[in-house]
Amino acid sequence: MKKLLVSIILLAMALTSPAASRQHPCLLLSKDSVKEMKAAVGSVPLFDTSLAEVTENADKALEREICLPEPVDGGGGYSHETHKLNYFDMYNCGIAWQITGRRAYADRVKAMLMAYADFYPGLGYHPLDLSPVPGRIFWQTLNESVWLLHAAQAYDCIYDTLSAKERRHLESKLFRPYAEFIMNGTPDNRANRRTFNNLNNHATWANAAVGMIAIVMGDDELLRKALYGFDESGEAGFMRQLDVLFSPDGYFTEGAYYQRYALWPFVIFAQCLNRNRPDLDIFGYRDGILLKAVDALLQMAYDGEFMHFNDALEKGYDAQELVYAVDIAYLADPSDKELLWVADTYQHKVVVSDAGFAVAKAIAAGETQPLKLRSCMLRDGADGSEGAFVILRSPREEENTALTFKATSHGLSHGHFDRLNFAYYDAGNEVVSDYGAARFLNIVAKYNGHYTHENNSYAKQTVAHNTLVVDGKSQFGAKMGKASKSHPAVTACSLGGDVQMVSAEETLAYEGVRMQRWIFLADVPFLQYPLVMDLLRATSSAAHTYDYPIHYNGHMIQLSVPYERALTGMEVMGESNGYQHLWVEAKADAAEGTTAYTWLTGHRMYSLSCATSADDDIYLTRLGASDPDFNLRSEPAFILRHEAPSGSHLFASCLETHGKYDIKVEQSANLDRSCTGVSVLQDSEDCIRVKYGFKDGRAVLLSVDLSSGEVKYNVEYE
Amino acid sequence: MKKLLVSIILLAMALTSPAASRQHPCLLLSKDSVKEMKAAVGSVPLFDTSLAEVTENADKALEREICLPEPVDGGGGYSHETHKLNYFDMYNCGIAWQITGRRAYADRVKAMLMAYADFYPGLGYHPLDLSPVPGRIFWQTLNESVWLLHAAQAYDCIYDTLSAKERRHLESKLFRPYAEFIMNGTPDNRANRRTFNNLNNHATWANAAVGMIAIVMGDDELLRKALYGFDESGEAGFMRQLDVLFSPDGYFTEGAYYQRYALWPFVIFAQCLNRNRPDLDIFGYRDGILLKAVDALLQMAYDGEFMHFNDALEKGYDAQELVYAVDIAYLADPSDKELLWVADTYQHKVVVSDAGFAVAKAIAAGETQPLKLRSCMLRDGADGSEGAFVILRSPREEENTALTFKATSHGLSHGHFDRLNFAYYDAGNEVVSDYGAARFLNIVAKYNGHYTHENNSYAKQTVAHNTLVVDGKSQFGAKMGKASKSHPAVTACSLGGDVQMVSAEETLAYEGVRMQRWIFLADVPFLQYPLVMDLLRATSSAAHTYDYPIHYNGHMIQLSVPYERALTGMEVMGESNGYQHLWVEAKADAAEGTTAYTWLTGHRMYSLSCATSADDDIYLTRLGASDPDFNLRSEPAFILRHEAPSGSHLFASCLETHGKYDIKVEQSANLDRSCTGVSVLQDSEDCIRVKYGFKDGRAVLLSVDLSSGEVKYNVEYE
Repeated sequence: MKKLLVSIILLAMALTSPAASRQHPCLLLSKDSVKEMKAAVGSVPLFDTSLAEVTENADKALEREICLPEPVDGGGGYSHETHKLNYFDMYNCGIAWQITGRRAYADRVKAMLMAYADFYPGLGYHPLDLSPVPGRIFWQTLNESVWLLHAAQAYDCIYDTLSAKERRHLESKLFRPYAEFIMNGTPDNRANRRTFNNLNNHATWANAAVGMIAIVMGDDELLRKALYGFDESGEAGFMRQLDVLFSPDGYFTEGAYYQRYALWPFVIFAQCLNRNRPDLDIFGYRDGILLKAVDALLQMAYDGEFMHFNDALEKGYDAQELVYAVDIAYLADPSDKELLWVADTYQHKVVVSDAGFAVAKAIAAGETQPLKLRSCMLRDGADGSEGAFVILRSPREEENTALTFKATSHGLSHGHFDRLNFAYYDAGNEVVSDYGAARFLNIVAKYNGHYTHENNSYAKQTVAHNTLVVDGKSQFGAKMGKASKSHPAVTACSLGGDVQMVSAEETLAYEGVRMQRWIFLADVPFLQYPLVMDLLRATSSAAHTYDYPIHYNGHMIQLSVPYERALTGMEVMGESNGYQHLWVEAKADAAEGTTAYTWLTGHRMYSLSCATSADDDIYLTRLGASDPDFNLRSEPAFILRHEAPSGSHLFASCLETHGKYDIKVEQSANLDRSCTGVSVLQDSEDCIRVKYGFKDGRAVLLSVDLSSGEVKYNVEYE
Repeated sequence: MKKLLVSIILLAMALTSPAASRQHPCLLLSKDSVKEMKAAVGSVPLFDTSLAEVTENADKALEREICLPEPVDGGGGYSHETHKLNYFDMYNCGIAWQITGRRAYADRVKAMLMAYADFYPGLGYHPLDLSPVPGRIFWQTLNESVWLLHAAQAYDCIYDTLSAKERRHLESKLFRPYAEFIMNGTPDNRANRRTFNNLNNHATWANAAVGMIAIVMGDDELLRKALYGFDESGEAGFMRQLDVLFSPDGYFTEGAYYQRYALWPFVIFAQCLNRNRPDLDIFGYRDGILLKAVDALLQMAYDGEFMHFNDALEKGYDAQELVYAVDIAYLADPSDKELLWVADTYQHKVVVSDAGFAVAKAIAAGETQPLKLRSCMLRDGADGSEGAFVILRSPREEENTALTFKATSHGLSHGHFDRLNFAYYDAGNEVVSDYGAARFLNIVAKYNGHYTHENNSYAKQTVAHNTLVVDGKSQFGAKMGKASKSHPAVTACSLGGDVQMVSAEETLAYEGVRMQRWIFLADVPFLQYPLVMDLLRATSSAAHTYDYPIHYNGHMIQLSVPYERALTGMEVMGESNGYQHLWVEAKADAAEGTTAYTWLTGHRMYSLSCATSADDDIYLTRLGASDPDFNLRSEPAFILRHEAPSGSHLFASCLETHGKYDIKVEQSANLDRSCTGVSVLQDSEDCIRVKYGFKDGRAVLLSVDLSSGEVKYNVEYE
């Protein structure tokens, strides 16, 4: 039935949009919009500055000699970076030609494409044997796709300046073989064919790149392959990616960092399809999944930077991809005026395209509205059934507080073994932190810019996160295959209001250990800032060692118990599973009752108070041991260790944000924690009751009732 | 002769400004200016927001109950902070009363002053025995002076609302005893008298506070004591402070951080004198020394933050003191439109005063001009003969590069043992860094907010700086008394142009060792960014161990020689003189020829290339050992060690800034250093010639010729 529908649509398309009649440019620009842009030059500030950047880069390109170095280097290396620069140069010159009409730009694009048409056919595989999907110009095919996506736009821009013969030459010598390689690889290596027909981010890039050059060339068959897979069955291809790569809430399973990257080909190709294949109603597809994905990504940020879970580096709203995503999403739905705020506040530029032009005009017209960040649950899995990533934000907007909780599926090859992990952001800082990826992208001196060994040996390990570690090991023995087969269950989630919470359960990460975590963000009337309350329970029929690590940014201020500081020699905390990377800066016996730890981040204090027994141990650690190549950052952590007999153990703690440390006027207040103690009043299978005591005899009574099979909780103040 | 002149002036003043006739307010506001401000409300944006902040704080004050806690705590503690809040409350309410005319504000000031009039007479010395100059309300008299300076302004504002009897009561019970205490201490402890008649920053505060309350009370005798010392001889007092505390270039000997603080009482009291004692021509005094001091301080900043030498914490243009300094300097010289830029860009507020009003009006009128930061030599010493602090800035403004060189006198109790130290700032970052002070100001948990022990044991020690360390010891054996008796000699300084340089010589810091350093900042035609070239020579008739430390911010990228990394255990570098605080993260044998070290800071690479011999050792260290209370930050350093026989040894190196690491668009370029080697061609007493080789056969030939007795240098490019 589906196939039939597809066939009908294809037939309709073949009839209504014969390739030969397509006008150019036809991708992100059109003849009409270019006319409008030309007329508006000088009157739309953000567009003018963006255009100026493009023409400036295009001018720089003109100054350079055309150079197509032999492909030898990996990311960051000379040949790699030069070919990247080349596609940016072609792209910039193409756009500049369209808007300024200066012929030199078009000539440069033509000359470069012609050079590539000479260069490309002679290439074998790239000599660096680092990728299972090797490219020719670049070490991996992913970069080849990015090249083609840009080159297609450049070609589109100068299409009308070329003779039919020149086009035939470029298409037969360069674009068709190039697309064929991305789509099929070579007879002796079909890795690319597998990728092209796979359902993941690399496949999306491949689909989009092939689809865009297909549109420019007017090759409808090629476009169908991009949309529906090589066999045009619809089991693969761009449309299928839209079905499976995002959850119904727009969450991409690899997490925010890769969602940013994944979105790029999605939105660009979608924008091209929106113009050339309106019959697909691409932005309405799957209840508007692409716009939901843009929204979900914007939500997964703090102060404009994407949250650091899974293999994340520092990226934010100002990333190049987001400029595309925001502009294109706005053109698709001009009622979403909050997108303008992202462009105006963080990006300071637009894509020189129909979409960017619309954004710039709307900003100039004063239509911008502030982006509303909200508490939200982003379900994972194509059907939303595979756990969730949850963000709790303080209802008081001026507080800028966010707590994240990770109970998603593994996240493919970029996932970490971090089920039931949390992170805490406050006052502009990542206070309780997630290491993200151990990688120096593009820096050749650092393992060629790839993920370093320490990404596996530390960053992915459970102890690198703020969640339970059992017996000093990582969840699922750090085996991705095992971890990918299941996901935690979100057992409750309450968003909005003075008490927000989320809870989840995980029973497979450690054999024989049931992990439950309930985490609360509460506006407590007698406290200065929202209070995080954390209940983390492990239940097992065997005895275990449980570690409760809290990684933080900031400087150690105070530990409530005496500690033994490493003064003239320092040792590592363990031998494997990430512990080998932790220097033990100090060790302490916990108190019988409550142990509290305070650190300073920015202008505020953060005090963690934990219910402890005298047998518990405290470790203050610093990252960097067993790191021969200095690949890890030097970061501190607090680790509470409990030796548990069989049965259940509850880590009950709270994280209090307090104080003002204003060094400008040298005023400080409330630098001591208010929490006087954490008492577990009850911890039975069906019920947990914890009393958090505070100064002046105040208290928060937190109870969780599981007797009904559902999570019921109650928060009372004394 | 001088005394006679003073007497005549005083006589003239007594005749022309009888106290009884003085109008109030008379300090930072006047009846006329208040009238103008009232009329302008709503029309001068920066003034409106500043006024709104004052009234908001005044409103908060009204909501509080008046509370004068028993003095028990040190800085950051409850009683300390409450009394600080009290003077801010009185000050804010006083100002708010003047501008809004809302009576409740005036009543609150009166009630608080009356409370203090009851409270103060019963106080003995503060119980915390931490200061040689103890106070009553506060642990040190310095804070008492700050209290009085604010209370005087509050009293001035509500003066006209009080009956003569009320004024008599306040003055006899509070202000006169208070001023008397600051001026004379008590019969059993004359520490305050010594301070009041001393020549330092604490004395300036005491003079200003007493002088301001004297003006308000119309007590000319008291004012004379503030101006000329208790005996009115002119050997002490405010005017004498102006003679000796600043060098002719406006440099305050303790360095930028304390210059900021020192300026506060200077500018405030000067502004009061300008109105009430125009005969003093206070802003013209000593060739405009106060305005020079403001300018010098603004120059000693990078990206708006004061450079970190000596006992420095993080402070910048937005510090409260600077708001006063900038506003008052502008009122004194409204032709300096660059001051408006500081107010507008960094401070976002003005003092609600005549001065702030003038600044806000000028900004509203569009008169702001960008602050020009320039290369400059700031001589130290009252007569400018005691060395200098030198700043070299790249002539290309867009580069935002600054190199500082410290060859000043010791800097009193806040000085470090860091002669011939340098620091390097680039692209918004402190790249080669100065630790500043080991202190957590106002944090009681950290040694009561005082300078920690590690300030002496590490931060002040020579190895904590980027200068020569001889035999693992600190300059002058880390004895301030010895260090204070001399200063290095600046031997050359060339500011502006493509090659800037400064050099100095120090012969006393290490007995029997002559230190010479020539440091260059050059715009080299074939390099991306300015190049730092450093020649540091030690000459001695004995054998010594010389260390050449470079402290940096950033992450280690590459060392050009194999190194042994501490993997599972870490040791300290030494036992004393600061070395006990350095963990050895890695150790290496230097290369025969050149050893290079690259790190990443922000979006650029920094490569240090040093001429080395195979016998030299390299240490990569991290701060934090022997630090039982976690008082030190975790920071990295590179240390080159050379065992020298008798004779001279030259450390010749260059620091190359290179590369672009733009993670937004994932473009990177020039990440490898260009420098291929550093060769010392000649190192004789009169002549040094060094060749810095670069990629593509390029080179910089640097020569220093000392044969004439003067420093002559030459830079050639190959």
